[in-house]
Amino acid sequence: MSTPSIPELIEPSATDLAAFEALFRQSSAIGATPAGGLHRLAASAEDGQVRDLFRGWLDAHGFEVRIDAVGNLFGLMTFDPDAPYLLCGSHLDSQPSAGRFDGVYGVLAGAVAVSSLARQLRERGNVPRCNLAVVNWTNEEGARFQPSLIGSGVFTGALTLDNAWESRDGDGIRLKDALQAIGYLGNDRVDLNIAGYVEIHVEQGAGLESSQTAIGVVRETWAALKRRVRFDGEQNHTGPTPMAARRDALLAAAHTITAVHDEALQHGVQMHSSVGRIEVYPNSPNVVPSRVSLLIEYRSRDVDLLSAASERLDATLSAIADKTMTSFEVESSVLRSPARLHDGFAGLAHDVGAELGLSTTDSMTVAGHDAISLNRRYPVCLLFIPSSNGVSHNEAEYTSDQDMHNGLRMLTGLLHRACTSSASFG
Amino acid sequence: MSTPSIPELIEPSATDLAAFEALFRQSSAIGATPAGGLHRLAASAEDGQVRDLFRGWLDAHGFEVRIDAVGNLFGLMTFDPDAPYLLCGSHLDSQPSAGRFDGVYGVLAGAVAVSSLARQLRERGNVPRCNLAVVNWTNEEGARFQPSLIGSGVFTGALTLDNAWESRDGDGIRLKDALQAIGYLGNDRVDLNIAGYVEIHVEQGAGLESSQTAIGVVRETWAALKRRVRFDGEQNHTGPTPMAARRDALLAAAHTITAVHDEALQHGVQMHSSVGRIEVYPNSPNVVPSRVSLLIEYRSRDVDLLSAASERLDATLSAIADKTMTSFEVESSVLRSPARLHDGFAGLAHDVGAELGLSTTDSMTVAGHDAISLNRRYPVCLLFIPSSNGVSHNEAEYTSDQDMHNGLRMLTGLLHRACTSSASFG
Repeated sequence: MSTPSIPELIEPSATDLAAFEALFRQSSAIGATPAGGLHRLAASAEDGQVRDLFRGWLDAHGFEVRIDAVGNLFGLMTFDPDAPYLLCGSHLDSQPSAGRFDGVYGVLAGAVAVSSLARQLRERGNVPRCNLAVVNWTNEEGARFQPSLIGSGVFTGALTLDNAWESRDGDGIRLKDALQAIGYLGNDRVDLNIAGYVEIHVEQGAGLESSQTAIGVVRETWAALKRRVRFDGEQNHTGPTPMAARRDALLAAAHTITAVHDEALQHGVQMHSSVGRIEVYPNSPNVVPSRVSLLIEYRSRDVDLLSAASERLDATLSAIADKTMTSFEVESSVLRSPARLHDGFAGLAHDVGAELGLSTTDSMTVAGHDAISLNRRYPVCLLFIPSSNGVSHNEAEYTSDQDMHNGLRMLTGLLHRACTSSASFG
Repeated sequence: MSTPSIPELIEPSATDLAAFEALFRQSSAIGATPAGGLHRLAASAEDGQVRDLFRGWLDAHGFEVRIDAVGNLFGLMTFDPDAPYLLCGSHLDSQPSAGRFDGVYGVLAGAVAVSSLARQLRERGNVPRCNLAVVNWTNEEGARFQPSLIGSGVFTGALTLDNAWESRDGDGIRLKDALQAIGYLGNDRVDLNIAGYVEIHVEQGAGLESSQTAIGVVRETWAALKRRVRFDGEQNHTGPTPMAARRDALLAAAHTITAVHDEALQHGVQMHSSVGRIEVYPNSPNVVPSRVSLLIEYRSRDVDLLSAASERLDATLSAIADKTMTSFEVESSVLRSPARLHDGFAGLAHDVGAELGLSTTDSMTVAGHDAISLNRRYPVCLLFIPSSNGVSHNEAEYTSDQDMHNGLRMLTGLLHRACTSSASFG
């Protein structure tokens, strides 16, 4: 990649690093938990507060702010209205009782990187090949509203706006109404011409930390099967009703949870499985549960393994329904294919790491990210920075300032090279 | 019992039967579900409405209304301020999506029986040995607030008022505040001298219907073990976290649910078991659950069997915690002893049935009832009327008008004999 004619790589200034630290500290205070974590569910009051903070920062630093109909919040730095945009970002929402870094880091580092890079390009009188932009995607986590990746899914067309709006939380509140309530139901059609998308994120694994590597460059993502299953039984009194007459939907769910776990165990490290959410009705101590919904996940690099597991799950659910005298319905089932990310973009990232003296390695991701949504339509580069002990979706999630600075330098440098190189990301 | 000198048994008039029907119809409309059931959780707005209806009826029919600090609503018919009270009643709250009869029947039949009996005694110029009263106990069901039997538990002293007030629903609302909100946090110390308590209830079993018997006279109640157990695991991402590193509290709960079911199966019809309620945190699709609480019930006539099952449960919970790398805590554990109800009172009930030409049989109850609370301190008679197919805690719960009329005649007659006989309930 490097040739003698390439200009010096732009890096964030000390002032930029300080600005990032201040912004991250302000974010961490919004939805802070006593144990040092973050509880900031999508489209909650706290999500509204951190969006206000982020929008204010963008306004103050010369971005054009645009908000689309699903609440995705864009900050644009336009050099040439006819040029495409190089976009970076992630999400400001969190899981319940989660960490301060997941998603948040990528949005705030993205804002500071774009601001720093745009300022320094203008100081040099350079007009880059691409405009620059940062984005906060709505409801990446899928905690309050399902599915996950709603904002980026609508942006790429994988999810319709109507379906996204109609998603309801546990209290029956629609995402559309929740966004309206916090002032982030936009009316902008943000129809950007996207040249590429970069996301930088904490690793959610211990690979970088244990190998003492500064940056992971994600090359591929695992496949995932996500299925929502409902068992229907019959409400009855838990006291007098004879055991043989009970049609207990929670018992059916319990058999399913253990079966889903056992399936993964049969495949060693090749498969992960989980049931993270269960909804029980009427969920009263003295009533045999009549209706239980489960969210089942299988994940593997090997999509054939997932397909076979999916068929075994069908048979298992039937057997459990028979045994418990319940019926079941698959309410939704999504098989997310494994994917490779853009090779040229990844190669460019390794080159930039080398230029900056930051160690890099190829990584893969098991978790979904907005980058995976974008990867269906655009060249995407997904970068990781280390995460202490790999703990994630937990208040103890931690990444050091040094690692966050490294990531900010990496992101700024990669955006610089990508928006000025003549080739398509290498 | 019967001697030639005993006066004619008082029965409800046709007007009384019509009054009961109207009252029951009005009750059924408050919290009615589209499927013909009732959804009227304790201290909800609907509970407030039906209490207003009941209080208005009592006022209009000459009762003195008293409301105590836990919301128990008494209607008194006092003949002699120095005489003890013969009390009858049940509860107006329901389980979620439940039936119109459970509890409600006993309160409304009680009100009409007392009104009818008091009127006819006065018409005859009789002053009975006992005063009469009807009561609606607060939160019998234990659906919204735990434990069950809160109102009658406070009345008998089995539960402190402070513990009752501090019970919180799933939204964290205290019972005290919920009662205040509907206007039923009373300030009366209702410290009645109780001669005896009668409760009439739908059977919650198919015994009376299948034997075509009008009235069941409950002689004994099963023992029950109620235990609340919490598993603590660790919140983590359901994607990248290796299976071997997960500490999944919901998986531990699933193993427990199947084990609790298996325990009952080993004892044939001698034991019932259930897990009707589960609370999961954070209950998000992408997060390994870190905290799950379960409400476990074992019921049996044989208390030794329950004690042995309780010890096996301890061992099972330990083994499950080890296997899933979780820890567990028994948050509460209550062993409700089996009990015999007052033999003389039951004998009197059979006599009254014979006098009225109503078939009676001895019954037992697996379910808890306010009568079981009262039985710890007072002579208690618990009567059942048939319930179609034995379906209970279900919108399809059904008892015919004829069966309800039979019960009302039975209750009126029993109250008459009990409040005028010189012996202590035979």
